[in-house]
Amino acid sequence: MNEAGLDTTALQDTLGRELAARRAQLVEIDPRLGPPADRLVGFVLDGGKRIRPRFLWLGWLAGRAARGEQVSGDTAGTEAGVLLLGAALELLQASALIHDDVIDRSDRRRGAPATHRALAADHVAAGWVGDADHFGVSAAILLGDLALMWADDLFTAGAVALDVVAEAAPVWATMRTEVTAGQLLDLFTTTAATADPAAQEADAMLVDRYKTAAYTVQRPLHLGAVAAGAPAGTVDALLAFGSDVGVAFQLRDDELGVFGDPAVTGKPAGDDLVEGKRTVLLALARADLAADPQRGAELDELDRGIGSPAADVERLTAVLAGTSASRQVEDRISALLASGLAALDRVGPDGSAVVVDGVRAHLEQLARRATARRS
Amino acid sequence: MNEAGLDTTALQDTLGRELAARRAQLVEIDPRLGPPADRLVGFVLDGGKRIRPRFLWLGWLAGRAARGEQVSGDTAGTEAGVLLLGAALELLQASALIHDDVIDRSDRRRGAPATHRALAADHVAAGWVGDADHFGVSAAILLGDLALMWADDLFTAGAVALDVVAEAAPVWATMRTEVTAGQLLDLFTTTAATADPAAQEADAMLVDRYKTAAYTVQRPLHLGAVAAGAPAGTVDALLAFGSDVGVAFQLRDDELGVFGDPAVTGKPAGDDLVEGKRTVLLALARADLAADPQRGAELDELDRGIGSPAADVERLTAVLAGTSASRQVEDRISALLASGLAALDRVGPDGSAVVVDGVRAHLEQLARRATARRS
Repeated sequence: MNEAGLDTTALQDTLGRELAARRAQLVEIDPRLGPPADRLVGFVLDGGKRIRPRFLWLGWLAGRAARGEQVSGDTAGTEAGVLLLGAALELLQASALIHDDVIDRSDRRRGAPATHRALAADHVAAGWVGDADHFGVSAAILLGDLALMWADDLFTAGAVALDVVAEAAPVWATMRTEVTAGQLLDLFTTTAATADPAAQEADAMLVDRYKTAAYTVQRPLHLGAVAAGAPAGTVDALLAFGSDVGVAFQLRDDELGVFGDPAVTGKPAGDDLVEGKRTVLLALARADLAADPQRGAELDELDRGIGSPAADVERLTAVLAGTSASRQVEDRISALLASGLAALDRVGPDGSAVVVDGVRAHLEQLARRATARRS
Repeated sequence: MNEAGLDTTALQDTLGRELAARRAQLVEIDPRLGPPADRLVGFVLDGGKRIRPRFLWLGWLAGRAARGEQVSGDTAGTEAGVLLLGAALELLQASALIHDDVIDRSDRRRGAPATHRALAADHVAAGWVGDADHFGVSAAILLGDLALMWADDLFTAGAVALDVVAEAAPVWATMRTEVTAGQLLDLFTTTAATADPAAQEADAMLVDRYKTAAYTVQRPLHLGAVAAGAPAGTVDALLAFGSDVGVAFQLRDDELGVFGDPAVTGKPAGDDLVEGKRTVLLALARADLAADPQRGAELDELDRGIGSPAADVERLTAVLAGTSASRQVEDRISALLASGLAALDRVGPDGSAVVVDGVRAHLEQLARRATARRS
């Protein structure tokens, strides 16, 4: 993937440069804004797999290739406008994670304290007056807002540089509305949780589609393709691929949220169980237990334990492991990966591939990596 | 102001149309998103004095007039691109207020429950599972995010319609960073509050400048002027005017936060005292009391009461009223209004006014209204 994949060093340079300029703006207003700015800058620069910019880049390459342009050598992952769009995606993700951790009351993220917890600790360490926890939440809300604003500023800068504002803005708008809709649905379906496993599974799939699939894979590809002026057939194939691979990505995430190794994921073992996340994995496990009259006690145990601070995580994990849910999730991941890859094999009206071979290989590699990851 | 002021009905129509389209997008994802969307839509459509779009409009008119274009009759407040920019400012304000009320733990806004309180009440009324208060805060964070995203989408739509994306984007970016910097400073200065009245006054002025002045008056004018292609002399005069009038606007707000009539302001009496807001008014009152050794008891009373849930609001208000703070604030408002208006009288290198008479009259009227208001 070297010659055509995203140059992540160039992305990191772009992020570093853009964040440094904005941090300087804050410090010029008042030096006391330096430390909170550093919390945000550090969070963005230290973390993440850069999966969204990677898909963005491949969408861009697929679009260029479909227009008959060369996509190797000089296009090796360093086009400035696309790097700005990639940086925008990373800032958007930072904003979503910072606010999500407040909403989910998560203490840890990427092997370190979540932003609102780190800010609360800053408050305690400085010996400030007032409620440290509420201070942490308040400052995290504002830093998340700042990340969201800067994401938009970087999007605009990238779109202006590529001269595609009018074309790219609707995709950017849809993506942001979709991910927030997914987060709202996550909140509403958890709160008004249905006991029916089938309805619960449908809700979990809906949340996966909008909260993760669209905004992690599908829309970054879409944004890149539209920015490159891709023809409709290529855009449609990427949308179909992105939807399937995106859902598969989230299903892998659900698995890791229960069975993942804390040393690799950076989150506590069984984190999703403690938070009471209504995942597809959980819905399938509940359906499995509900179908067997002999296993009512296990179903009760699961329902009482999920989302409870007093839950015995090890025991809940064992109950889940004793169902067919994990195998079903693996089957679905495989099926989604296959159907997603099949979309890339579509041909246009003239019989030629809508996604050229060179780019297709990179998309397949990234899709496999994203759905087989361990963190 | 009829023929040249902002057509607020046209602004309301623009907001209604744009919000309805976005609400429909959410409901198409899932009908359960209708009620939370309505909370946001209702908040934006029902409320506010539309002061930011009004200043935006006058900045636009000043810019057009300075370029020698006609600014009456057919320019009567209905230019579609400017209305979109005005709608963007209202959405940005909605986002800031929704998140601010979470941060300040305010229960009321515009005579109704604050958004997070209304959402918590929805939770209780529906009999949902989990913590209603945390649900309200979580949903309010997400609705505030959505308002911020939609603000950016409307900004882009307006800037594209007027063909000024590259010119207007830096002003939009600066404005949003400034207001969030002001909010962060508000949080940090309240938390690490200094006891020294002079330092406290300087901090309060800094917060007023960024949290309110820049984003309520100065940058909306700036954005309008830049969107109209205003010459530098006009932009500079508007910036100077906007900074002074904006600070005066906030000083009036501080007064109303203590001495305002709840029936008119829509907030409880002495709301700022209960919240512990570190206003210029409070700093001046503390300086007054600290200067008189006989009034140490009153100063103690004030310091113990401010921000305390157990505070006797009536008594604290009386202590403040017994100082010279209110008179000093009135003097400052008058001085700022005078210096702001003086900036509008500047002339360019060719001796002609940088802000033409017709627009100047409207700016003066709006500035007087904004600094003499009762709500």
